[in-house]
Amino acid sequence: MDKVLLAHGSGGRLSHDLIADLFLPHFPAPTLAKLDDAAVVEPLATTLMLSDSRRLAFTTDSYVVKPLFFNGGDIGRLAVCGTVNDLAMVGATPLYLSAGFVIEEGLELDVLRQVVASMRDSAREAGVEIVAGDTKVVERGGADELFISTAGLGLVPQGVDISASNARPGDLVILSGAIGDHGIAVLSEREGLAFKAELASDVAPLNGLVAAMLKASSHIHVLRDPTRGGLATSLNEIALQSQVGIRIEESNVPVHDAVRAACEMLGYDPLYVANEGKLVAIIAPDDGERILEAMRNEAHGQEAAIIGEVMAEPKGKVLLRTGIGGTRIVDMLAGEMLPRIC
Amino acid sequence: MDKVLLAHGSGGRLSHDLIADLFLPHFPAPTLAKLDDAAVVEPLATTLMLSDSRRLAFTTDSYVVKPLFFNGGDIGRLAVCGTVNDLAMVGATPLYLSAGFVIEEGLELDVLRQVVASMRDSAREAGVEIVAGDTKVVERGGADELFISTAGLGLVPQGVDISASNARPGDLVILSGAIGDHGIAVLSEREGLAFKAELASDVAPLNGLVAAMLKASSHIHVLRDPTRGGLATSLNEIALQSQVGIRIEESNVPVHDAVRAACEMLGYDPLYVANEGKLVAIIAPDDGERILEAMRNEAHGQEAAIIGEVMAEPKGKVLLRTGIGGTRIVDMLAGEMLPRIC
Repeated sequence: MDKVLLAHGSGGRLSHDLIADLFLPHFPAPTLAKLDDAAVVEPLATTLMLSDSRRLAFTTDSYVVKPLFFNGGDIGRLAVCGTVNDLAMVGATPLYLSAGFVIEEGLELDVLRQVVASMRDSAREAGVEIVAGDTKVVERGGADELFISTAGLGLVPQGVDISASNARPGDLVILSGAIGDHGIAVLSEREGLAFKAELASDVAPLNGLVAAMLKASSHIHVLRDPTRGGLATSLNEIALQSQVGIRIEESNVPVHDAVRAACEMLGYDPLYVANEGKLVAIIAPDDGERILEAMRNEAHGQEAAIIGEVMAEPKGKVLLRTGIGGTRIVDMLAGEMLPRIC
Repeated sequence: MDKVLLAHGSGGRLSHDLIADLFLPHFPAPTLAKLDDAAVVEPLATTLMLSDSRRLAFTTDSYVVKPLFFNGGDIGRLAVCGTVNDLAMVGATPLYLSAGFVIEEGLELDVLRQVVASMRDSAREAGVEIVAGDTKVVERGGADELFISTAGLGLVPQGVDISASNARPGDLVILSGAIGDHGIAVLSEREGLAFKAELASDVAPLNGLVAAMLKASSHIHVLRDPTRGGLATSLNEIALQSQVGIRIEESNVPVHDAVRAACEMLGYDPLYVANEGKLVAIIAPDDGERILEAMRNEAHGQEAAIIGEVMAEPKGKVLLRTGIGGTRIVDMLAGEMLPRIC
């Protein structure tokens, strides 16, 4: 294998291999090696000599979604919410974003205007400021319409320690709502599928939801937004990094009817479909009800449900108990299912 | 004008119009409106309740240079140095970078390996850590090989206040070395020009040079790295933002012989050609010799020279006294001269 494949960008197995084999040997920062969505930059806090022990969180993401506009969102909303959510997933309060635009010559200025207005609205909704930007234009055919890269800065409150390494046997697995909405909405828009009007992306900023959860409990161990690679890949990452087993109940995982129908028709498993407004949380069992109640009071957590639990064994594996009572291993996404979904 | 033109990415007049008309109305952060290369994020320092008055600097840039490798550098070195330099231009000490990769399906993994190794080397040279990253892959033809977006975080030392708004009549204009090397090196590589071996990009991290200058004097008012749009555009930006006139002496502006010859042959003016390892400084007149000496002791400042001065009038204009004694107005770059130069 000597060329980049689409699957290298899937968020699944090949993406992990690429990071582990090609990037990490050159960038040995311990924060990067943790593979969390946002690096919690501990040394910076030391350098800053803060009067308290809060830390900065810093993250980046590039967005290449196709088409630029889809039911429920667009590339601008995605670029703001995705980066806000990466910060929220380490428990940080997102504060500032930067945005870099790579634009294909010939793009309608009105398209750019709409995307920028959407970024403004999403930034307001999330309570963050876009404070730095850059614009590059490439010739026709040198890029496909518009790519946006956002980076984000946030503050991790004192005492918060959330990482995919922190799951412990006995913990509960909470999902904030139904899965698969974003991926199927973008796909059906792109392919012009007949049911596209019924499907809307869930793209949303989750920092408010996380703030409510952190207020309800100081025992949130892991947060993850299951984007590329879906819930199955996020749970596998947690199981690997925490060296635990995770068992989920298929019947407890919410999936909207339209998404389930589309997945059946298209041959997709919702467990692998991208979300942009959902999170999975691993929490101490005693705080389950309290956290669930706090989540259900939030706009983006109304469908929150306990979907499984963490076990000591089998380490690094995710097990699914199916509706009919069987149990199967759920692996990371292998190959690319839905390119350019975010 | 309803479509994006290549010239919107030139760094010149149309780039400014795009930022002023399309981006700023939606992102009214006062830091962004200053149009400095890096936003000095003052409110964050307040939020952090630092025990001293240091501030964070935060910036981003996207890199689309073609070809990926050229004499003297590559896209990876450019992506690290460019963002390090944007931080240095507000007087910040660069600390952390993030990197987002948009990769075209089919790119040789060896190409990616070389670029990543170059980023590692450049980050080491600049003394920064790459702590967060993201990878997206688009289908063949959806992008041209590889684009990289980097964001950077730095600390502005106490008492440092450097901004393109700070030039005052009587100040001196210092240039750190010869202009045009980067742009002409990339162009001649891309076009396969015969003299390409003689031309090397100047791409380099300038934070060491800036640190030496700040150590020598506390009266550095403006720093700017003349990238897209060249020295002429940077000086125009300073003249506009500070509402002063700037006069430079053509005979004092260093240009390497190979660059001068290539520019004459190709019909370019070196004043508009991009640099990636040079800075222009506006400083208090009394500290001129001290700063110049400090710069000449640094690897990237050996050719430093005083090239002009700041005047009260004509406000917002840059004047060039030519070698034969005439004076002409030097405008911002209009249109696009060298697309995909960085």
